[in-house]
Amino acid sequence: MADSNDPAALSSARDSGQELYTLVNELYPICRSITGDGVRQTLGILSRYIPLTVHEVPTGTPVLDWTVPKEWNIRDAWIADASGKRVVDFRALNLHVLNYSIPVRKKLSLTELRPHLFTLPNQPELVPYRTSYWNETWGFCLSQRQLDAMPEGDYEVCIDSTLEPGSLTYGEFVVPGATDEEILISAHTCHPSLCDDNLTGLAISAWLARAFASSSGPARRYTLRFLYAPGTVGAITWLAQNRDGVSRIRHGLTLTCLGDSHPFTFKKTVFGTAEIDRAVACVLKHSGLPHQTIDFFPYGYDERQYNSPGFRLPVGSLMRGRHGMFPEYHTSADNPSLVSPERMAESLCVLRDVIELLHGNTAYLNLAPWGEPQLGKRGLYQALGGTNIADLQLALLWVLNLSDGSHTLLDIAERASMSFRSIRAAADMLQQHELLSPVPSGATPL
Amino acid sequence: MADSNDPAALSSARDSGQELYTLVNELYPICRSITGDGVRQTLGILSRYIPLTVHEVPTGTPVLDWTVPKEWNIRDAWIADASGKRVVDFRALNLHVLNYSIPVRKKLSLTELRPHLFTLPNQPELVPYRTSYWNETWGFCLSQRQLDAMPEGDYEVCIDSTLEPGSLTYGEFVVPGATDEEILISAHTCHPSLCDDNLTGLAISAWLARAFASSSGPARRYTLRFLYAPGTVGAITWLAQNRDGVSRIRHGLTLTCLGDSHPFTFKKTVFGTAEIDRAVACVLKHSGLPHQTIDFFPYGYDERQYNSPGFRLPVGSLMRGRHGMFPEYHTSADNPSLVSPERMAESLCVLRDVIELLHGNTAYLNLAPWGEPQLGKRGLYQALGGTNIADLQLALLWVLNLSDGSHTLLDIAERASMSFRSIRAAADMLQQHELLSPVPSGATPL
Amino acid sequence: MADSNDPAALSSARDSGQELYTLVNELYPICRSITGDGVRQTLGILSRYIPLTVHEVPTGTPVLDWTVPKEWNIRDAWIADASGKRVVDFRALNLHVLNYSIPVRKKLSLTELRPHLFTLPNQPELVPYRTSYWNETWGFCLSQRQLDAMPEGDYEVCIDSTLEPGSLTYGEFVVPGATDEEILISAHTCHPSLCDDNLTGLAISAWLARAFASSSGPARRYTLRFLYAPGTVGAITWLAQNRDGVSRIRHGLTLTCLGDSHPFTFKKTVFGTAEIDRAVACVLKHSGLPHQTIDFFPYGYDERQYNSPGFRLPVGSLMRGRHGMFPEYHTSADNPSLVSPERMAESLCVLRDVIELLHGNTAYLNLAPWGEPQLGKRGLYQALGGTNIADLQLALLWVLNLSDGSHTLLDIAERASMSFRSIRAAADMLQQHELLSPVPSGATPL
Repeated sequence: MADSNDPAALSSARDSGQELYTLVNELYPICRSITGDGVRQTLGILSRYIPLTVHEVPTGTPVLDWTVPKEWNIRDAWIADASGKRVVDFRALNLHVLNYSIPVRKKLSLTELRPHLFTLPNQPELVPYRTSYWNETWGFCLSQRQLDAMPEGDYEVCIDSTLEPGSLTYGEFVVPGATDEEILISAHTCHPSLCDDNLTGLAISAWLARAFASSSGPARRYTLRFLYAPGTVGAITWLAQNRDGVSRIRHGLTLTCLGDSHPFTFKKTVFGTAEIDRAVACVLKHSGLPHQTIDFFPYGYDERQYNSPGFRLPVGSLMRGRHGMFPEYHTSADNPSLVSPERMAESLCVLRDVIELLHGNTAYLNLAPWGEPQLGKRGLYQALGGTNIADLQLALLWVLNLSDGSHTLLDIAERASMSFRSIRAAADMLQQHELLSPVPSGATPL
Repeated sequence: MADSNDPAALSSARDSGQELYTLVNELYPICRSITGDGVRQTLGILSRYIPLTVHEVPTGTPVLDWTVPKEWNIRDAWIADASGKRVVDFRALNLHVLNYSIPVRKKLSLTELRPHLFTLPNQPELVPYRTSYWNETWGFCLSQRQLDAMPEGDYEVCIDSTLEPGSLTYGEFVVPGATDEEILISAHTCHPSLCDDNLTGLAISAWLARAFASSSGPARRYTLRFLYAPGTVGAITWLAQNRDGVSRIRHGLTLTCLGDSHPFTFKKTVFGTAEIDRAVACVLKHSGLPHQTIDFFPYGYDERQYNSPGFRLPVGSLMRGRHGMFPEYHTSADNPSLVSPERMAESLCVLRDVIELLHGNTAYLNLAPWGEPQLGKRGLYQALGGTNIADLQLALLWVLNLSDGSHTLLDIAERASMSFRSIRAAADMLQQHELLSPVPSGATPL
Repeated sequence: MADSNDPAALSSARDSGQELYTLVNELYPICRSITGDGVRQTLGILSRYIPLTVHEVPTGTPVLDWTVPKEWNIRDAWIADASGKRVVDFRALNLHVLNYSIPVRKKLSLTELRPHLFTLPNQPELVPYRTSYWNETWGFCLSQRQLDAMPEGDYEVCIDSTLEPGSLTYGEFVVPGATDEEILISAHTCHPSLCDDNLTGLAISAWLARAFASSSGPARRYTLRFLYAPGTVGAITWLAQNRDGVSRIRHGLTLTCLGDSHPFTFKKTVFGTAEIDRAVACVLKHSGLPHQTIDFFPYGYDERQYNSPGFRLPVGSLMRGRHGMFPEYHTSADNPSLVSPERMAESLCVLRDVIELLHGNTAYLNLAPWGEPQLGKRGLYQALGGTNIADLQLALLWVLNLSDGSHTLLDIAERASMSFRSIRAAADMLQQHELLSPVPSGATPL
């Protein structure tokens, strides 16, 4: 049965929202970036869930077309008015500093300061999130309200940061499977105090990793690889260091924005009909949860790198609110109030079901393919004719009809418009009654 | 011309409703089942139309995964009240007995009797149709009204049936064609006093068989095989006995529920795009009659067996009301008042046109493929330019344009969105003028 | 850059409406037919734009399934009443004569005359356009109003025409390209005083021919062939005389009805997904102009001949109003008031963009395919992260992602739902930065 080695942890996914929410809140205050101690601290917290392997890649290392940048760390940053009062303060919200700002300490007039200030005039209460990884400059992000309240005159600015040779940090965790074929789950680690994007992705990934690692029973088919790396240059660094190994990746997902209350958004791989595309679509369709599926486009998160023409890894992206498309995106409004335990638990269940589907998506051969086998004499069919058929019995008939070696259970679920869980259960019953035999993975369909 | 060997009988299909209706009424009172004299009597009546070959397969014969069951016959059945009055009487309606009931005669209280009684609480005036072929038991079907009128107390029940070694009976009739490629028309014979399901199918099948058998002119391309067998185990028995021969079947249909006033429903083969799927869709589209097309699913009538993975015969199912989806289905309301001569005549015409389409669906080569041939000098085109084109002339142009050896006339009819009859007529005209040459069946398209 | 060798003439397409309109008006009074001096005079006027090669094919020459007809010329035609007054006069409107009428001069009663008169009873003010190329007869076309005003009595008719051995005339003009692969632009020359159909096609074709011929810079990929021939028999004659050469045609369009104010109508090739089908659809989609796309059918203009099974040239048809579908079609209302400079200029721009698309539709290889190349260090990317992406940057990412050698720029434009112009510009920028290399035409995609 599909559930025979379902660990208790996996079964309890729906109850795990509060645990996830607590983890997100613990990670929220840390100032992360594409390098630096914020990422290390974050990986340290995740290591309480899973024994992460942490990699440090030195500044200056060539990685594909890029180079690992200097490491950035920050202790404090502020703008003080003439009276010495902090009117913008990093300690209140780490979004206030332009991420990757070089150190600065000087006095200047508001007029001189303005080119270094970033606001959202259309969302005057919110502080924007801005970065300058590849152009050495400094700046502050603040709300339009804050800016409007700053009188002309002199100000003192301080950014107590360092941008020096160091390393880029990422974490990895692997759950070995029965084969070395891999499922990649990737979440970016580089955002400071933004919550939906992407502490929800980190928390849910860590929860899943722990749950699958602690699963009892025989090993599942796929090796699971969980990656926690900064966006873009982190994924590029990992790809550069694993250029040969990535050919083992059969399916993948990037995770982001999984705690808000928008419908699910699944962004497909560049292939559009890869198994992961169909698996996520099938799970969402039968989840009863609102959702949409969108085609791949070469912008967004690290699916851009994985789907690039040199790698062409079938990696989709699962989100709820779509990046760039909801008002709180990349602002101070992406805080713990934007996400909820319930929505994170739903996301967790969807992801668990997707991974279970991939593990269980086998093709079978009907061992009694000539006509329908007599299910009644095996106790698989209602004895009394004349009424309508139950769902399980219809699932049995679908699996028997299409198990000619060329249809996987996902093919059958799609064709029957039934949940993978129902089709999987029917296949298990038929296999128990010796009516079905798995086609070895990789075997040529008959 | 397509009509050159159209027998008078085929041309008169539209007038044949009354004859079909009379036949359905004659067959209606007989108590049929999957075995027994009711089936034999039914085949005897059909033999007045066509010289059926009747097969008897002994009880206990292994047939695929099944075994031919004991033969069931019944003479009488009733429930009598304390006064001896029959309150449920097989002689009034043979649906009253649970089909395949074992013999019983005893007195028992209403409380003891209830587990053996079947009603339709939501349709309190109707008697359900129920069977118990594979589980030896007995029972009665009655209306909820009848049951409500039965006071507590003692009753006597009698089922004067036999369930003994015997045989399963089916009939076959073959109209030889120019080749041994076959079209299979299959109708189930096992339902007792149910009219739309499936006396309409039996009557229409017999009418078609007689009409094609009496057709004058050269043999048509396909051999037609008409099969009259009990549902499920009958089709399985026939398949078991014709395991090698069935590879000759190129197209097939099961017929059921063809006399009610619902729109036509065509259930496609498991392939979904087989020639029979397209042929029926094309005929229905241009019939002017309301209709719907539904995808194959592995439940319903004997298309389940024919489309099973071992056989994969392209057999669709033509119905009007869809089995299980109209309120009279499998109840005493499926009686002669549910069906009409007009609707049966329509069904007959559709089926005739489908079979004619299959016979006439050839690919041709345009013998003047370089530009358009000059139709005017052959009298095939209006002499005066400048006005719009008539349908036949457009059909001529379509046939010329697409007759490159890789398109059949059905391909052309679909692409042109014109009736097969128009395209067929155009092809005949062009062939007469030596502008078209048939591509031998089975030849590789150019 | 795509625009680097864009001649001034091509850039000014949008301003050329008035020039086109003047040309149409100059051509309007000439009485053309499928043969005769009207066609020669028309080609003479077009020769002021481009040095046309004019071909004369003698009467009686076999051309495919047809024969070049006798040449028709006409000087005058009229119907006079008993008083000698011309009540129908060719000199007022050349549509008044049934095109290809044999000479006649006689007196006859209105009753005797009626079978030779053609009107449009439902459009009583309009004179129809009618022809009788292949059936030697004579006749007059007039408005229903004119006919209604003709009292019973005697009339004299005169058609001063000749129908004698001569030749069929067509013109051709070729702009050599870097390869001998051709784009065919074909416009029919046979209509007398009809304006939208097809003086607009002739004028726009001549304008395009001149513009591409005068283009500076290196030769474009395709050789352009502009054909000006009478409908049907003219195209057939040209095909007959170029039977081998036509295999070089890669894409083609027939032009007609390009000056009216209806939305554009693109009629696809018989293939439906040829490159020309996709090119026109892409240009129209991003033109901001109303348009529709219709499937091929074997009626209309000379696309019928080009798409015939012997040739199967991928030739679509671009029109605005669809032939036979607007009330002025083939009537005296198809006069200069039906067309406008603005609509002709729009048509010109669409055609120019289609031809430019075909020339520029190359496949490329991303030379840095492993992950995304770092666009920022090349000045191809905004320096400051966090905001939404601009269209050009998205175009850059699309071109990089899909340039694996198996996608042309049109493939990419379709997938990205962006204009070909944007995608082309992105490809040019990437090639300048040595991130992209063209895949030689005809090379096997990787």
